[in-house]
Amino acid sequence: MTTICFAGLGAMGRPMAANLVKAGHTVRGTDVNPAALDWLKQHGGTPFASAREAAGGAEMLVLMVVNADQAEAVLFEAGALDALSPNAIVVLCATCAPARAAAIGAKVEATQRRFIDAPVSGGVVGAEAGTLTIMASGPKAVLDAAEPVLKVMGSRLFRVGEKAGDGAMVKTINQLLCGVHIAAAAEALALGERAGLDTKVLLDIYGSSAAGSWMLNNRGPRMLMEDPPVTSAVDIFVKDLGIVLDAGHQTKAPLFLAAAAHQLFLAASGMGLGKADDALVIEAYRAMAPKKEG
Amino acid sequence: MTTICFAGLGAMGRPMAANLVKAGHTVRGTDVNPAALDWLKQHGGTPFASAREAAGGAEMLVLMVVNADQAEAVLFEAGALDALSPNAIVVLCATCAPARAAAIGAKVEATQRRFIDAPVSGGVVGAEAGTLTIMASGPKAVLDAAEPVLKVMGSRLFRVGEKAGDGAMVKTINQLLCGVHIAAAAEALALGERAGLDTKVLLDIYGSSAAGSWMLNNRGPRMLMEDPPVTSAVDIFVKDLGIVLDAGHQTKAPLFLAAAAHQLFLAASGMGLGKADDALVIEAYRAMAPKKEG
Repeated sequence: MTTICFAGLGAMGRPMAANLVKAGHTVRGTDVNPAALDWLKQHGGTPFASAREAAGGAEMLVLMVVNADQAEAVLFEAGALDALSPNAIVVLCATCAPARAAAIGAKVEATQRRFIDAPVSGGVVGAEAGTLTIMASGPKAVLDAAEPVLKVMGSRLFRVGEKAGDGAMVKTINQLLCGVHIAAAAEALALGERAGLDTKVLLDIYGSSAAGSWMLNNRGPRMLMEDPPVTSAVDIFVKDLGIVLDAGHQTKAPLFLAAAAHQLFLAASGMGLGKADDALVIEAYRAMAPKKEG
Repeated sequence: MTTICFAGLGAMGRPMAANLVKAGHTVRGTDVNPAALDWLKQHGGTPFASAREAAGGAEMLVLMVVNADQAEAVLFEAGALDALSPNAIVVLCATCAPARAAAIGAKVEATQRRFIDAPVSGGVVGAEAGTLTIMASGPKAVLDAAEPVLKVMGSRLFRVGEKAGDGAMVKTINQLLCGVHIAAAAEALALGERAGLDTKVLLDIYGSSAAGSWMLNNRGPRMLMEDPPVTSAVDIFVKDLGIVLDAGHQTKAPLFLAAAAHQLFLAASGMGLGKADDALVIEAYRAMAPKKEG
């Protein structure tokens, strides 16, 4: 069993940390939100307000924070990296630009500690069930060492490369597909509304056909709600498609569809919908081509 | 049982006509290809080289031709419309621009005959199994009258509107989603290649996740083949996304993703791949951002 420092106890991080506790690991958690620390205490972990203290002597550090900036703040500014056990493994699960993940990995390895770039997908449902998809890259020996812990958090563990940044690139391309598919569903349903068609029937027709996507089935019905519950916000895709376009820029690969989709999420955010459910990217289309009355 | 004139005995039309024969209907078929007429004769239908003769006295005309031009040629130039029984129902199954389908419907109804706009999807597999999706629009009484015959060809029969053009619009939006999803899969896999990732692993990861689409699973593996078999050609989406953009123009609805996807299919066609499998739209990306060696 491993002593694990877990940084980032948000909606995803909490069930992931709880699964590590249940599997018998010692979990030392940290978060800027005091309520998250109370939660951890009630679920069998040991909370610390300071990331440096949480990391003290830990054999593994899981970074389930929001982005690369927060990962760097925990590791370098708050001093968690230097407090870890000398041979510890740092597991970066946040969605980061590939170049940022690679740079963080290099700084970790410069201290002789080991690094895995391991973003996740599968949402809160997957985090709770321990069925997250983990897109892990790193040296084979390090992946071998970390695998028992990673498998507790995500049953769909893929080894996608040997260097830091490969995992982040796989997650980046994942977000390219997700973002484009949401925007495509919005474009299709908005055209249907504009043409006076019954959009619920459209979802029935397309959802189980060659026109279908996971996002069409998941976000499509929420696009037709007046005020859908927020499962993931418009501004998440403003950020993630920004990372996608940066990755295209870094590799000099043109990404026509991702670029167009990004503009639509930006438009929705500019309309004041940044914190709303990402299904409401359809409002950008509705603003430009309103449904005709009667 | 109905006497049906079936125009257009191609890859889709043949199994559809054969299913009508098996269901007990009298099928009088016509096609410009003599081999198609031989085929029909062997499968229990009566072939005619002339569309006017095939239509003689028929109670229904199914138009399973390639596009609106061919539908007009059969109906108006070859004289099939005037040869039909006075109260006959014309069923337009070809993928047409909504405005063209509406115009054809108006000309048919001007002769007191009845009209259904009923494009199909589901490919040759669905045509053979009788499980096509049929997106039918027309007056309720006409749809009621045609339903027994339509159900023989497509078990997934949807009534999507009461006027000619509604069915075509539903099919148009279907093609918007299909075309954008194919191009998105190409954009994603090409970026993965450019970044040096194992694209087969990418398909494993994304195919069953929130990033998935029917097209990613179906076309993705073909994008990774050297010379994939042709199931549907690049130029079909050059045409169909052209219809999508015309429909957006007609309704004054901006279609950013469909417009970008259309450019990529045009690029692939311009590279000499018009007759190749539509999965090879990925070659447009590869031409711009080749895979890095070693």
